[in-house]
Amino acid sequence: MPQIETVYSPSLIEHYSLRGKTVVVVDILRATTSMCVAFAHGISHIVPLVSIYETILYKPQNYITAGERNGQKVDGFEKGNSPFDFMDADIKGKPLAITTTNGTQAIHASTLADNIYIGAFVNLQAVVDKLVSDNQDTIILCAGWKNKFNLEDTLFAGALAELLYNGGFEMNDDASIAAVTLYQSAKNDLPASIKQSAHAQRFERMGIEKDIDFCMQMNIYDFVPRYVEGKIVV
Amino acid sequence: MPQIETVYSPSLIEHYSLRGKTVVVVDILRATTSMCVAFAHGISHIVPLVSIYETILYKPQNYITAGERNGQKVDGFEKGNSPFDFMDADIKGKPLAITTTNGTQAIHASTLADNIYIGAFVNLQAVVDKLVSDNQDTIILCAGWKNKFNLEDTLFAGALAELLYNGGFEMNDDASIAAVTLYQSAKNDLPASIKQSAHAQRFERMGIEKDIDFCMQMNIYDFVPRYVEGKIVV
Repeated sequence: MPQIETVYSPSLIEHYSLRGKTVVVVDILRATTSMCVAFAHGISHIVPLVSIYETILYKPQNYITAGERNGQKVDGFEKGNSPFDFMDADIKGKPLAITTTNGTQAIHASTLADNIYIGAFVNLQAVVDKLVSDNQDTIILCAGWKNKFNLEDTLFAGALAELLYNGGFEMNDDASIAAVTLYQSAKNDLPASIKQSAHAQRFERMGIEKDIDFCMQMNIYDFVPRYVEGKIVV
Repeated sequence: MPQIETVYSPSLIEHYSLRGKTVVVVDILRATTSMCVAFAHGISHIVPLVSIYETILYKPQNYITAGERNGQKVDGFEKGNSPFDFMDADIKGKPLAITTTNGTQAIHASTLADNIYIGAFVNLQAVVDKLVSDNQDTIILCAGWKNKFNLEDTLFAGALAELLYNGGFEMNDDASIAAVTLYQSAKNDLPASIKQSAHAQRFERMGIEKDIDFCMQMNIYDFVPRYVEGKIVV
């Protein structure tokens, strides 16, 4: 049976073997949620980048550019990292270059894996269906906050690990077991649990609480974006 | 008010500022528990070391030497890492040099902190009393298993964080909040929760289940070992 493992920070991924495995990258607030939104609104592909500088270089190539640091849009980019930034008919058919504090870093940390998928609550069931169909060892990589553990990505990991376990995956690692326990204790009121997290409180201070409500929605999209050869595609 | 933070792996500590703070190093199974046992049986001081090679060098200096890798005693050392190894009248008044897979590494990862304390369930209340009296920002550093998250150290972190919070500390980081949630869901039967962890199952396979039962005992010692200038002392 395929195995599930959960990793709480991109800077822990070096302690795991990635070859022959699938990594699901999750940055609930907000990168992986926003990427799903962008695809739902017709973006052709996404190039996730580590640095602001690299991302700016995509401007002359007619990419839409998006940049976020510490939760705020970076000056000079068309978009930030809010899901609402990508609910825009004008993005249809265009490519996107994006750099964020945590999510795009986590994607790059996963590059040795066989498959890299983009997961969020908004496409949770689609991710489960794809992983069960692939039947491959799977690592759930939480983007965290600046390489520290965060609650919202862990709750997603718990939800996903539980569904995979019910779908026949083995779950032996303490991080997955803990994530499932945390999800079970939070799932009756997920938005309330998320809103007590440090990251959500940071968002409230920035007045972007509506982003949190959006990112907590379950299964509004039925596709799984995939990172392959430098690009995320659907 | 002083702050509590929890760190789930020595390899995440680089993302935290340690200056002006206290670090409580925890390796429930078994290094920090066994160190408490050694002091309770009269060891004079402990030198925690990263490598087997360094530890061997203490033999000619009349240190008792202890070495453990992957849960097993290393050949050529007098002791392994079991608490029962140190329940021995012969260690009284002698110094100990020890290297373990996780615990001694975590102590070395903490060296930039102002104070470094050794915590375990066996001296939990003494650690709380000391931290409340010090009234300083505190990081609970879980030794984990080969830099991966583990359950038993996290449950200890949750128990400690909850007591500190009740003692007036602030708790804002997601890792502490999650640890407290996990501890609350486990505390009615801590040994059973620990025994479902990956590390405990590794122990069962090695036939050292009695070590787990010992390490789950609460408050049998009333002192806090402290790492200062390369030595742990009481």
